[in-house]
Amino acid sequence: MKRLAVLGSTGSIGTQTLEVVGCFPDRFQVVALAAGRNVELLIQQAKQFRPRYVSVSHAEDLERVRDALSDPSIECGLDAGAVATSGADLVIASQVGSVGLEPVLAALRRGIDVALANKEVLVMAGELVLREARRSGARLLPLDSEHVAIAQCLGREAPGALRRIVLTASGGPFRGRSRESLAAVTRADALAHPNWSMGPKITIDSATLMNKGFEWIEARWLFDVPAERIQVVIHPESIVHSLVELVDGSWLAQLGIPDMRIPIAYTLGLPERLPMPDLPRLDLVELGALRFEAPDPACFPALGLAKTALELGGGAPAALNAGNEVAVEAFLAGRIPFTAIAEVADETLGSHEVVSEPDLAAVWHADRQARAAARHWIERRYA
Amino acid sequence: MKRLAVLGSTGSIGTQTLEVVGCFPDRFQVVALAAGRNVELLIQQAKQFRPRYVSVSHAEDLERVRDALSDPSIECGLDAGAVATSGADLVIASQVGSVGLEPVLAALRRGIDVALANKEVLVMAGELVLREARRSGARLLPLDSEHVAIAQCLGREAPGALRRIVLTASGGPFRGRSRESLAAVTRADALAHPNWSMGPKITIDSATLMNKGFEWIEARWLFDVPAERIQVVIHPESIVHSLVELVDGSWLAQLGIPDMRIPIAYTLGLPERLPMPDLPRLDLVELGALRFEAPDPACFPALGLAKTALELGGGAPAALNAGNEVAVEAFLAGRIPFTAIAEVADETLGSHEVVSEPDLAAVWHADRQARAAARHWIERRYA
Repeated sequence: MKRLAVLGSTGSIGTQTLEVVGCFPDRFQVVALAAGRNVELLIQQAKQFRPRYVSVSHAEDLERVRDALSDPSIECGLDAGAVATSGADLVIASQVGSVGLEPVLAALRRGIDVALANKEVLVMAGELVLREARRSGARLLPLDSEHVAIAQCLGREAPGALRRIVLTASGGPFRGRSRESLAAVTRADALAHPNWSMGPKITIDSATLMNKGFEWIEARWLFDVPAERIQVVIHPESIVHSLVELVDGSWLAQLGIPDMRIPIAYTLGLPERLPMPDLPRLDLVELGALRFEAPDPACFPALGLAKTALELGGGAPAALNAGNEVAVEAFLAGRIPFTAIAEVADETLGSHEVVSEPDLAAVWHADRQARAAARHWIERRYA
Repeated sequence: MKRLAVLGSTGSIGTQTLEVVGCFPDRFQVVALAAGRNVELLIQQAKQFRPRYVSVSHAEDLERVRDALSDPSIECGLDAGAVATSGADLVIASQVGSVGLEPVLAALRRGIDVALANKEVLVMAGELVLREARRSGARLLPLDSEHVAIAQCLGREAPGALRRIVLTASGGPFRGRSRESLAAVTRADALAHPNWSMGPKITIDSATLMNKGFEWIEARWLFDVPAERIQVVIHPESIVHSLVELVDGSWLAQLGIPDMRIPIAYTLGLPERLPMPDLPRLDLVELGALRFEAPDPACFPALGLAKTALELGGGAPAALNAGNEVAVEAFLAGRIPFTAIAEVADETLGSHEVVSEPDLAAVWHADRQARAAARHWIERRYA
């Protein structure tokens, strides 16, 4: 019986994780759940899975949860970090954005394995997080479809066997568009991802390719591979979830329908494969072709920004992430156009003062400074 | 230092095996070579690799080889079976056709691992060969690109994790052609494989898809998977060398440029990967697309014949193989049209009397009977 704590249980990855967990009641026990403001869904989840601890992000929601559960064996609180360390064998880190960093660090510090869907954690503080995992011996497992694909491909290979990682990207809803035409795209356009059903923040990040830039940074840390040996290729069908090229000229790829329950089942089930009989089956003949293209740097500057941030090092990726969060929020609120997201991120990165080997305080400092710079820039340009 | 014996050293797989071996003089020692009638190349190989034993297939070539080598430390003979057992750790079985069966059995009987490029061995006597390997504990390793791909994909997986094997086929030079147009194709047309450079027999078998039928039978034995869980899909680019579908909805695929040195290096190097820096690199973006189609049973009845043979069981696959060998020979000699190859194979299979659980004698009996039936049918129709 594997004991799980799910951070961000009401989000896209959180609900799909609980869906997989619900199929295997003999294998998994949910010991803790943490959510933000979707309190009704959290209550429903807590009733189904009977965790020991439930956390919400806002104090005013606490009473509602306690009343609804009316179960003294379920403790209710405000501390996602406590969720991460409450007797779990594996923490599912599926929060969105920088809010996930502290709970992940808390889990790793206690030697608890973490399955990471929350890519911002490694973008912000890759070095720090890895150091913490190494110190305690906790494992950092991927939960993103691309990184789960890479983990499956690298599985048995010796570290010296890897020549290159090829990270695939769908290209999002605006693949093949001209740079000019992107200025006028709406919130609804950007939220209409062709292949994946995801939360709004990551869907916008997929439309700008910032998501892929973050995954590129994440891969660098997760697999301890120099960034120049990770390449991004556009693959519109989202069937090949990533590939590795090995030193003997062999490539390995992981494929599947674009359904997050598949990578989630892989990581939850490790080292066994969980039989998932009810998913639609991939049919290559029906699909006809798997296409591959180079990303267009003029339309999608986000990939280049991620590279710059990783080269600058220190707190620069944290600054990029923070600037991007502010920009995506502003775009979703209708305050800036789509193409301004990358501009805000670029400006934020430009104004960042690099600190090498930052500690957690320095990471948060970079994050705060970047948010302020991004807000300032947006106000100046789009007030 | 791994000691190798190469059966069929002057053929396509044999020469490419020695090419790979030559790149790693610290890892491999060639202890024996066996060839057919390409005596000059065999002499050249023996001079380069200094094996202990060299075998030719015809007594009249023996003197020429002895004279040319003029080295008393190299024994020359006529027994490929002796090559297979002459102090090797691994026998590379790269002969073509039924001639490979006895030396492979000889090696397995002595507990020597065999890397099998000679797919007819498992087509003829899959059950027998597997029984011999199980008894001695010798490993039967794949050397065909498709089966090496499957082995890489299945690598770490538990036997229960496999849902299906998808064997890819280029479709050969006649993919997409009408059945009628195939009657007029020439020897040169059929020998012009779009992707792979191989010997004449296997190239014709690729044009009829009989090669894929044989690989299908081979996969059934090599991976001990029920035949109905192995599917053939046409993939014209020959980049995805095969795939496996797992119970959790994940697929794994092995890819690479169509170059036999890559699968050869994989199997020779096991459990390590041999760095092959001088091969052209696969570029998915340049390639643009990987296509998949269903095979056309009307144009390519060979796949269906292989299924029938495996269902009939016993000596039926051996009979199919023998009939096909006779037919391909007749086609290469200009005696029968291309479409008659499958007809001959079909007739041969039809005239075969099934013996269940055949021993080696029964396999050879089926082989001889089928050859006679095939010759008879060809003479009757095309005299």
